[in-house]
Amino acid sequence: MRKVAVIGVGCSKFGVRRDVNVARLSFEAVKKAFEDANINGKNVEFLAVGSAGAGGLYEEVLPAVVVAEYCGMTGAGLTRCEAACASGSAAFFTAYMAVANGLVDLAVAVGVEKMTELETPVVMEMLGRAGYYLWEFHGFGPTFPAYYALYASAHMEKFGTREEDLALVAVKNHKYGSLNPLAHFQNRVSVDEVLASPVIAWPLKLYDCCPISDGAAAVVLASEDKLRELKVEDPVWVRGVGFSSGTANLSRRGDYVGLKASVLASRMAYRVARVEPRDVDVACVHDCFTIAEIMAYEDLGFCKKGEGGKLIREGETEIGGRIAVNVDGGLKAKGHPIGATGCAMIYELVKQLRGEAEKRERQVPLKNYVGLAHNIGGVGHYCYVTVLGR
Amino acid sequence: MRKVAVIGVGCSKFGVRRDVNVARLSFEAVKKAFEDANINGKNVEFLAVGSAGAGGLYEEVLPAVVVAEYCGMTGAGLTRCEAACASGSAAFFTAYMAVANGLVDLAVAVGVEKMTELETPVVMEMLGRAGYYLWEFHGFGPTFPAYYALYASAHMEKFGTREEDLALVAVKNHKYGSLNPLAHFQNRVSVDEVLASPVIAWPLKLYDCCPISDGAAAVVLASEDKLRELKVEDPVWVRGVGFSSGTANLSRRGDYVGLKASVLASRMAYRVARVEPRDVDVACVHDCFTIAEIMAYEDLGFCKKGEGGKLIREGETEIGGRIAVNVDGGLKAKGHPIGATGCAMIYELVKQLRGEAEKRERQVPLKNYVGLAHNIGGVGHYCYVTVLGR
Repeated sequence: MRKVAVIGVGCSKFGVRRDVNVARLSFEAVKKAFEDANINGKNVEFLAVGSAGAGGLYEEVLPAVVVAEYCGMTGAGLTRCEAACASGSAAFFTAYMAVANGLVDLAVAVGVEKMTELETPVVMEMLGRAGYYLWEFHGFGPTFPAYYALYASAHMEKFGTREEDLALVAVKNHKYGSLNPLAHFQNRVSVDEVLASPVIAWPLKLYDCCPISDGAAAVVLASEDKLRELKVEDPVWVRGVGFSSGTANLSRRGDYVGLKASVLASRMAYRVARVEPRDVDVACVHDCFTIAEIMAYEDLGFCKKGEGGKLIREGETEIGGRIAVNVDGGLKAKGHPIGATGCAMIYELVKQLRGEAEKRERQVPLKNYVGLAHNIGGVGHYCYVTVLGR
Repeated sequence: MRKVAVIGVGCSKFGVRRDVNVARLSFEAVKKAFEDANINGKNVEFLAVGSAGAGGLYEEVLPAVVVAEYCGMTGAGLTRCEAACASGSAAFFTAYMAVANGLVDLAVAVGVEKMTELETPVVMEMLGRAGYYLWEFHGFGPTFPAYYALYASAHMEKFGTREEDLALVAVKNHKYGSLNPLAHFQNRVSVDEVLASPVIAWPLKLYDCCPISDGAAAVVLASEDKLRELKVEDPVWVRGVGFSSGTANLSRRGDYVGLKASVLASRMAYRVARVEPRDVDVACVHDCFTIAEIMAYEDLGFCKKGEGGKLIREGETEIGGRIAVNVDGGLKAKGHPIGATGCAMIYELVKQLRGEAEKRERQVPLKNYVGLAHNIGGVGHYCYVTVLGR
C-alpha cells in the first residue's frame, strides 16, 4: 500500500442553496480544492462522488458523470459512492484506495447533497427510509429523530446522562459554527434555549437536531510521485481508514447506548494508523443529534463508556480541552448535506492540521498533528473513521 | 498492489423476479458464491454493492446494509457503488481495491437490480434520465434507444454497417441465451424476426434492445494469504482493471461511431494486465443494444474501427471464431438488471476460465486463459474493463 497525501481541499457555503444545481454546487468546492492543490481537472485520473440523494432528494440521477464534466474531469474513472450519511467518507475511501493501490497518482473525492429542493416533511420521510425500508420504516414508521431518541433515552437511563448534557453539545457546536463562515447556522444558542425548543422526539428537542442543508466538499489525493512532480512539501497524510457496519434492523442491536460500528471502525483505524485515541488533537465526529456526539466520545475511546456527558460538562471537547471536537460547528451547526459531510470533515481536519482555521479562536493548538474524522450512515448502519496526520 | 483472486461466484436467475425483494434476490447469488468459495459471511471484511435503482426503481434506499444483514455480513465495511449500468463493475473494482491494498483479505461484490416493480414506461423514463438530466433529458427528452439509435445510424452511414449486421448480434446472443438456464430469454430468434420486430428508434427494432430484467450476481475476492488459509489452488486472478468516462452531454462528443471511454478504459486494462486484445479467449461486452456490441468489438481492439459488422457477419465472435463474445447471452438475451450486469460478467468469465460453462456447447475452448469484461454506464458516460486470467 502506497502512502497517500491530501494536497487540496475545498468546501462550499453550507445552508439553503436553492441558487445552484448539484453540478454548480460541487464546482464551488472543487474549484477551491484545485486552486489549493495547484492542479486542474485534466490531470485527475479517478473521481469518486459521495451522494445519497441522487434522483430522490434532487433530480440528477447520475451526479458522478455530471460533476466530472462540469468540473473538467471527463475521462477520469468514475463512481458514485452511497453509504447513507457516510457517503462522503465512502467516496474519500474509494479515491484514497485508487491512489494507494498504485493504479493512479491523482484522485478526487467530492461529497455533495441538495436537500432543500423538496418540502421538509417529504425529506424527513425519505431520510426515515434509511434503514430497512420494508421492515422497519414501512412496518413501524419511525423517522430519524425517533431512532436517536431511543438511544438518548437509553443512555440517560443507564448512565444518568442529562438533557442539559445533550444541550451543551448544541451550545458548543453553535459557538464554533458562529465562527465558521461556511456554517449553515451562524447563531449561538444557550442551554436554556435548547431546553425550551420544541420537543421533536423526547428527549431530543429541535436544537438537538442537525438541520437539513445543501452543500459540497472536495478533496484532492496524491501519491508521493505526484507530490514530487507538484513540488508539494509537508502535506497532510492519510494515516489510516477503518470501517464497519451494523444491522439495518434496530431490533437486532444488543443495546442502545452506543454504536458498535463506531467502536469497530475506530479500533481498525487506530490500528492501521498506529495511533491511540489520546494522540488525537482534533476530531470531527458525527453529531447528527446531540446524543450522537456524546456516544461518539465513548465509542471512539475519548472517554470511558457512560462518561460522555461528563466530558462535555467539563469542557474537555472545547478548544483548549483534552480533545477538540467539531470546532467547525459539526453537523449540528455547520449543517449536514448528507453526501457532503464526510468530505467536509476531511476539509476541516486538513485546514486545522495546516494551522489554517479561518479565525484565530477556531484554530486548535496542535501537539501530535493528528486529526480524526468519524462519519456514520444511518444509526450506525455504516461507519468510516479516517485518521490524518502531518 | 497485492495479487487478488476470485474464489467464488454466484448468479441468480435473471428475468421478471417479482417473487423476491432485493435482499432475497441478492441472497440467491451470494449463497452460491459463498458455497463456491467455501466461506460464510462472518469472515467477509468488506462488501461493495452495485445498484443504480435504489429508492427509484425499487423502494429499498440503502441496499448495501440490507444485503449485508440478510446475507450474514454485518460488521463488514460497506458501500454502495453507482455508475449507472456499470454499477456492478464499480462495486467489483471497489471490493478488488480493498483486497489489493492489503486492508482486508476477503471482500465481496454484489450487483443487484429490481427493475420490474414499476410499469415499463415509468422505467424507460427513469432510465432516460441517465445522462445530464437537467440539460439533455429535461431539455430534449430522449430515452435510451434514441441515444443508441444516433450511434447506429452514424455507424451505418460512415461504415456501411447494415441492419442485418445488427440483427446478427441478436441472433447470436439469443442462441447462447437459449443454452444458459439463468438467461431471461430462452428463445432463439432469426434475422428475419429481428428485422420484422417493431421499430423502437430507427434503425433499432425491439429485438435490437436488451430487456428490462431483475437479477443479482456475487463475486468473492481473496488475497494470497486467504488462498493459503482456504487451501485454494489455481484460482482465477484479477489481471487488471481499466476505467474511463465520457461527457454527460452527448452534444460534446467528437463523433457517434464509437465510445471513447471504451477505448481508453480497455487500453488501460490491457496495459495493467499486460495482455493484447488478441490474447483474449472470451469476452463479455456491453450489448445493451446490438449496435453497442458492434462498437465494442472495434473500441476494444478485437477488429479495426468500422469492421465490427464484418466481424459478426463472418462468425468470428461465435464459439470457435477468433474471440467468443457474450456466450452467456449477453445483456441482449441473458438480461440487463443494470446494477447486476458487471458482476454477472465476472461470474460468466470465471465459469468459462474454469471450464465450467453449464452446457458443453457453451464452453469456450481456452488458449490463453484470458477473459475480458466490458461494462458501460449510460452511453459511454462510464466504462470499466476488467481482465481476468488463469
